[in-house]
Amino acid sequence: MDVAALFSKDAEAFQPSAIRALAPLLNDSSVISFAAGVPNPETFPAEALREAADRVLRDLPKRALQYDVTRGYLPLRERVAARGAALGLAATGGETLLTTGSQQALDLAARVLFDPGDVVLVEVPTYVGALVTFAARRARPVGIVRTAEGIDLAHLRATVSRLRGEGERVKALYVIPNFQNPSGLAMTRAAKDALAEAVAELDLLLLEDDPYGELSFGNPESFDRTPVAVRQPGRTVYLGSFSKTLAAGFRVGWMHGPESFLSRAELAQQAVALCPSTFTASVLESYLAHNDYDAHLESLRGFYRTRKNVLLAALGEHFPKAIAYSDPAGGLFTWASLPAGMNAAALLPRCVAETKTAYVPGASFVVEGDGTPFFRMTYAKETAELLAEGARRLGAFFAREMESR
Amino acid sequence: MDVAALFSKDAEAFQPSAIRALAPLLNDSSVISFAAGVPNPETFPAEALREAADRVLRDLPKRALQYDVTRGYLPLRERVAARGAALGLAATGGETLLTTGSQQALDLAARVLFDPGDVVLVEVPTYVGALVTFAARRARPVGIVRTAEGIDLAHLRATVSRLRGEGERVKALYVIPNFQNPSGLAMTRAAKDALAEAVAELDLLLLEDDPYGELSFGNPESFDRTPVAVRQPGRTVYLGSFSKTLAAGFRVGWMHGPESFLSRAELAQQAVALCPSTFTASVLESYLAHNDYDAHLESLRGFYRTRKNVLLAALGEHFPKAIAYSDPAGGLFTWASLPAGMNAAALLPRCVAETKTAYVPGASFVVEGDGTPFFRMTYAKETAELLAEGARRLGAFFAREMESR
Repeated sequence: MDVAALFSKDAEAFQPSAIRALAPLLNDSSVISFAAGVPNPETFPAEALREAADRVLRDLPKRALQYDVTRGYLPLRERVAARGAALGLAATGGETLLTTGSQQALDLAARVLFDPGDVVLVEVPTYVGALVTFAARRARPVGIVRTAEGIDLAHLRATVSRLRGEGERVKALYVIPNFQNPSGLAMTRAAKDALAEAVAELDLLLLEDDPYGELSFGNPESFDRTPVAVRQPGRTVYLGSFSKTLAAGFRVGWMHGPESFLSRAELAQQAVALCPSTFTASVLESYLAHNDYDAHLESLRGFYRTRKNVLLAALGEHFPKAIAYSDPAGGLFTWASLPAGMNAAALLPRCVAETKTAYVPGASFVVEGDGTPFFRMTYAKETAELLAEGARRLGAFFAREMESR
Repeated sequence: MDVAALFSKDAEAFQPSAIRALAPLLNDSSVISFAAGVPNPETFPAEALREAADRVLRDLPKRALQYDVTRGYLPLRERVAARGAALGLAATGGETLLTTGSQQALDLAARVLFDPGDVVLVEVPTYVGALVTFAARRARPVGIVRTAEGIDLAHLRATVSRLRGEGERVKALYVIPNFQNPSGLAMTRAAKDALAEAVAELDLLLLEDDPYGELSFGNPESFDRTPVAVRQPGRTVYLGSFSKTLAAGFRVGWMHGPESFLSRAELAQQAVALCPSTFTASVLESYLAHNDYDAHLESLRGFYRTRKNVLLAALGEHFPKAIAYSDPAGGLFTWASLPAGMNAAALLPRCVAETKTAYVPGASFVVEGDGTPFFRMTYAKETAELLAEGARRLGAFFAREMESR
């Protein structure tokens, strides 16, 4: 049977994730990898999670092993909502939808919102996984410049005006305000205020993705933790995740949003999976009930801050001055750019072969303009020693390339 | 903001599950419930799963708590494939895609296959959760008669011929061959053989959903366990699940199928959730490695066989003869029909109020013809004593209703 002849138009448009395609490179343990997009598993509190799983399966096995309501395990939703309330979010446990990682929240949102051809505005650069999700709905991503402070609002206004003038359905703006993947940048308080005003003025729905908000390196005063959703609760769908802080392999994320949106996302979740995992949610709930999560987060911030400092110092020492890179104040990534005309993707195979170091080429994060000079590096995976050694090798490689041009 | 004005056409078509809408009734612990669609949580091996979770978080925490490849945790895929091979399936671990319950496998398949308006053939009756998934893709379900033996192939051929004559895109046939939800019926070996020939002749893709295949009450010879997929591997997508046998709350199911289909479903999974939960998969794998799953299944069959026998005996004693019902040879459900003209949904609220017993009205399982006389009962939830008492009350209620007409 010619199975491919049966594929839907959406399926024809599915895009492989450029990052997942790098997996074979990342699985070579002899390569120093700046390419991983994942948290360091040493930071996951395995022993405390083991105790939590033990409690759950001793104390409430019939509940933890059974199906749940579509929005997921209520005690965890209440803890998530309480933490959100501390940030200013108005959501209650009832107004929280648990998902199979925040990626699934993004997918549910895309199903609720997008018909083929609908425009979704995205930052340049933006999270490639969101682009994959939007592509699976055949939505059309259009890029808006992201500056060091926030969204380029003049560009946003001009773009929306132009697109609507062309008759396009411009429904939503997708942003990662805090320690964005891939740029590492965080929006300032003033930029969030102005963005909130702009989305109201332009009548846009805001998809606010916040997996890295807890990973601030600086003192609390230097970073505005308040979600944009607090400023525009009626038009913001807020996505959170435990994947970067407790356990990516649990696949537990969540969505807050206007009830009309949440109830439609709930119907989508019934069609997709009936409900998220009761077991993983109840283990996380028990962890939160019996452990000091804030203390864990503080130690996590210290872990990544130290590694970031090591990498940035090594880049300063070893990278040619013509290579620019961000100095992130949180999260897992720095975003770098080669001199114009150099192509990070084209160089990667030789870089891996010659230097045994790897990074992620940036083009797949960039929907407008030339993305080829960019690349993303993480300091999450390797030890301080290997971060420094990798920076040395990579710097020497790029220097040779620049000389030979 | 008028959020609803932004909804996609798919979202406008989302259907609430009629069964999930009954949840408030089911949560009243004073009601004897034949309505639940879920396994009995007493049957889940909580202690063995606790030990498995303990092993996993002691022995391989960094792997179990981390993201995984898109197809999911390979050691579990290999065990699933080995069990499938024992049934005759050709799939290897590589040819297995783990999903967030088999419902998510169904959703991935629907995304790969259906554009709005595409026809998916379904049994009458069929699993309402599949109809919800197809509706979320705006596929058009068309019913084919399911007899006690299998699919009415004359009806199948005539329907496909008629629809294609009308220019419809008829892509797939969705079936639950074994102990179907809601009818409890299992296809005979001859019916599976004939169905396999018919789908080839009609050039249909077969979606074979098999969550209940391990729950046969009879002796092995009386039931054909061989999946239809074994007969037509090139055109069958086979869906399996641990939800009915080990832990519904883990949300672990799987898909086998032609590689061209699996690789497209894998791209969909990247967009949906990056990967399924590594943790739940690794706990199930450890359970399977350290326990006698087949012995567990044998005890599970005994558990449900006993309850089925109690309920069927009580129905024989207490139900008016004009009410027909199936005598399932496995699974969790019996399917009953009131005399023509009586409406199971209309009677339910008064039934619950007057008798404190509940069932699931059948209309939402029936896409062709009058579904109003049908209702589904499960023997999974209640004890033998309550099954008998509930049957007595329900029989008396229906008898009064029939007399008053």
